[in-house]
Amino acid sequence: MFEGAELGRKVSKTEYKDQVPELRTRLLAAQRALRNSDIPVIIVVSGVEGAGKGEVVNRLYEWLDPRGLQTQAYWDETDEETQRPRWWRFWRTVPPRGDIGVLFGAWYTDPMVRHVQGECDDAELDAELARITNFERMLTEDNALILKFWFHLPKAEQKKRLETATKDKRSRWHRAPLAARFAKHFDEFLSTGERFIRETDSGVAPWYLIESTDKRYRDLTVGRTLLEGIETRIEAQVDGYCAPSSHAPSLPEVSSAQVTVLDHVDLGRTVPKEQYKQRLQHYQSKLNELAWGAYQNKRSCVMVFEGWDAAGKGGAIRRATQAVDARLYRVIPVAAPTDEERAHHYLWRFWRRIPRDGRLAIFDRSWYGRVLVERVEGLASEAEWKRAYQEINEFEEQLVEHGIVLCKFWLHLSKDEQLLRFKAREQTPYKLHKITDEDWRNREKWDDYKAAVNEMVIRTSTEFSEWTLVPGNDKRFARIDVLKTICDRLEEALSKT
Amino acid sequence: MFEGAELGRKVSKTEYKDQVPELRTRLLAAQRALRNSDIPVIIVVSGVEGAGKGEVVNRLYEWLDPRGLQTQAYWDETDEETQRPRWWRFWRTVPPRGDIGVLFGAWYTDPMVRHVQGECDDAELDAELARITNFERMLTEDNALILKFWFHLPKAEQKKRLETATKDKRSRWHRAPLAARFAKHFDEFLSTGERFIRETDSGVAPWYLIESTDKRYRDLTVGRTLLEGIETRIEAQVDGYCAPSSHAPSLPEVSSAQVTVLDHVDLGRTVPKEQYKQRLQHYQSKLNELAWGAYQNKRSCVMVFEGWDAAGKGGAIRRATQAVDARLYRVIPVAAPTDEERAHHYLWRFWRRIPRDGRLAIFDRSWYGRVLVERVEGLASEAEWKRAYQEINEFEEQLVEHGIVLCKFWLHLSKDEQLLRFKAREQTPYKLHKITDEDWRNREKWDDYKAAVNEMVIRTSTEFSEWTLVPGNDKRFARIDVLKTICDRLEEALSKT
Repeated sequence: MFEGAELGRKVSKTEYKDQVPELRTRLLAAQRALRNSDIPVIIVVSGVEGAGKGEVVNRLYEWLDPRGLQTQAYWDETDEETQRPRWWRFWRTVPPRGDIGVLFGAWYTDPMVRHVQGECDDAELDAELARITNFERMLTEDNALILKFWFHLPKAEQKKRLETATKDKRSRWHRAPLAARFAKHFDEFLSTGERFIRETDSGVAPWYLIESTDKRYRDLTVGRTLLEGIETRIEAQVDGYCAPSSHAPSLPEVSSAQVTVLDHVDLGRTVPKEQYKQRLQHYQSKLNELAWGAYQNKRSCVMVFEGWDAAGKGGAIRRATQAVDARLYRVIPVAAPTDEERAHHYLWRFWRRIPRDGRLAIFDRSWYGRVLVERVEGLASEAEWKRAYQEINEFEEQLVEHGIVLCKFWLHLSKDEQLLRFKAREQTPYKLHKITDEDWRNREKWDDYKAAVNEMVIRTSTEFSEWTLVPGNDKRFARIDVLKTICDRLEEALSKT
Repeated sequence: MFEGAELGRKVSKTEYKDQVPELRTRLLAAQRALRNSDIPVIIVVSGVEGAGKGEVVNRLYEWLDPRGLQTQAYWDETDEETQRPRWWRFWRTVPPRGDIGVLFGAWYTDPMVRHVQGECDDAELDAELARITNFERMLTEDNALILKFWFHLPKAEQKKRLETATKDKRSRWHRAPLAARFAKHFDEFLSTGERFIRETDSGVAPWYLIESTDKRYRDLTVGRTLLEGIETRIEAQVDGYCAPSSHAPSLPEVSSAQVTVLDHVDLGRTVPKEQYKQRLQHYQSKLNELAWGAYQNKRSCVMVFEGWDAAGKGGAIRRATQAVDARLYRVIPVAAPTDEERAHHYLWRFWRRIPRDGRLAIFDRSWYGRVLVERVEGLASEAEWKRAYQEINEFEEQLVEHGIVLCKFWLHLSKDEQLLRFKAREQTPYKLHKITDEDWRNREKWDDYKAAVNEMVIRTSTEFSEWTLVPGNDKRFARIDVLKTICDRLEEALSKT
């Protein structure tokens, strides 16, 4: 594969001087157009040691407006990163729309190094490659432009460069922390690299092999590739560009007449008042203990509360938080995104709230908004919400893989019961604020929501992350049911550590 | 001081049941009013171990809407925190406007513990107390409502509780990490506490001593105090509340006719083209080496670039970044704040960009916008920009204390030279985007800006953080001057490590 990058291509000084001014002007213009677009540009910089990755990026800083550029290296993992799912560090560093992010090594370096060192077997590698492909597809579907550069040198040339670098006193500092580790295993590294390139070279996030022996050729090629990438994308956008479609299968129609999973929820279940007090106390005290146990065992917990308006989400959340030391949990209300959040993929705002090990995060509404309110109200396009199921499953799989205990609740209630509660709210002064016109409007779309909920539950109940459908006509039953589920899950998780 | 909190006050069950419903209704109403205000509420929770601080906060979660509440504990310091100035962790956790943040221990626990353990002498303690006072005053001047609760127990009562807690299997988890450490030193802790309370009990951020032997009395008192605090502040706001004024002295008038520090800048200095190339190479190569040295020695560096429009900030920044490995620096363009940034004190957005140890942050415009553009354009009130000098000095002092190398550049040029450059930009196609109507408008206010710059330089040139006034009529001279200054500073800092 790398033969094509060992052809000895060169650019003369005159040629270079001739071409750079126009390239720079066009790059700046492209960058300005980009700034007003909703496209984030991700440049992955990878390749053999000594090929001058740092030099190329410095060149980009020279040619572009540094104000729209940011660079990320992933040398050391901070403990805030270690204490969260592995991809958290990538999510926190992807550039916002309109910006260009240069990611050194990105999500490639770590699995490559581990594979070369024999710390990652083939099955693991395959899983890793699938995850990378999914992640990149997800970002490009959300409008990202991903360009991946592999800087190549023939083996002899690399050896020569590293030797010179070691001798040169000034360039002693030049060598990034991983350099030595890579250089020793040139051949293994190259064959691993080839495999990564082959398996992640998708149409939406292509690899560019850059012959790096001649610096002028290298820099000009990168500049031109970047320019062409941005220009093409922006033109396409103007012409009505459509993001690559998801591979999600077409979905079965669920009409309101059909029986849904929600219809199987037994809304007749109740807990008598006397039993309630006793059970509440029992489970709250248990939860208190378990939450401290999770803290000490560094297990984190993510709870998702979704449900019909007035189904009692707030009350159920409060019964849980009452039990837990306030230093251990955080309630995350999900309302309109901030502008920083809007500048990223919709999952970004949830990733940024993933708790550190030992902590508990309670999402009052969640990423499921994508396939519920955003679907029903037309705030997300059909392609967007359809592919969201897969994105969400992938996201939750990563949480669970990290050891996070994930509980998802749908608080269900009957349409009649909802009406009673709406009216009661309108008649109680201190509850009046809890009922708005929007609630009434949502109620009119009950059937649409029901279809959306049904599909959501079916498509996102996975072996690692089940939905708990909570019968909510009786508030007491619902609260106990939620508490008991949380306790069971935590207890199970802690018994394994 | 604590005698007033050992009076044995109690609230009967009936009384409690009687009062809670109205309190809750009013608390919720106050919280709703708060949400639409620009007031962040900070509740500091401190006091003796065993007084039930966690219980009280859980009670607040029960009474309030948990969606506007957030809690922070400061048990362990992550390495991302350790690698930045000490107050970074507090800045990152203060609540945004409209929210209530409950901070366990806040900025009090650490110095108190260190003082009790004899790790912090009186001089250090005084410095710490002054910093706390400044910080709280700064937040309240920016509209924050700060309520500090000290939960007190008589010694005998505390002893009893901790003994019970240790025996009770269930409550074994209850004890937060610091409990044991505190309990052993009850008397020392109390006398340290008294000193902290006495010296930080300001009118703007008062302490409330809460007798905590009776839980009902304790919780009701906290609820009422919080309610009164929010209600009073919101009413005052409606009546045209004015944030407490800063203690900054009145400022001397600087008219354009007077001689300013800028007039002493020798704009006649130049570097001939031939020398320029040579020096540029010299300093860039040196800077490259120094930046890696700083990385290895874990010294971070913050550079601030301010200057007249067209004075060459961008060019000077580019000459510096060209020299440094892109993995080590970050350019932070300062334009309009995002909505998340607007929801905090204006310094928050700069605190969040403070680099980790070993990294370099280059601010293209900076926190000085407050006393430049915001002052001249009337975007900040007079009280706001006047107190900003002190806030900035305090901020920079903290950076330098942490070991950050701080370089501040004002790129100066003559009004005539600016005109020449504006015109040149209008005539060069690829520079046309760099000149806007706003530039021309700013130029009309040259004298106002000059007065603002003069005052800024005078008031914020401190022994730990000097301004470098760069003669910018000759771009070559300016670039070399900037590079040389950075090299000198870094070299000096590294020679000391």
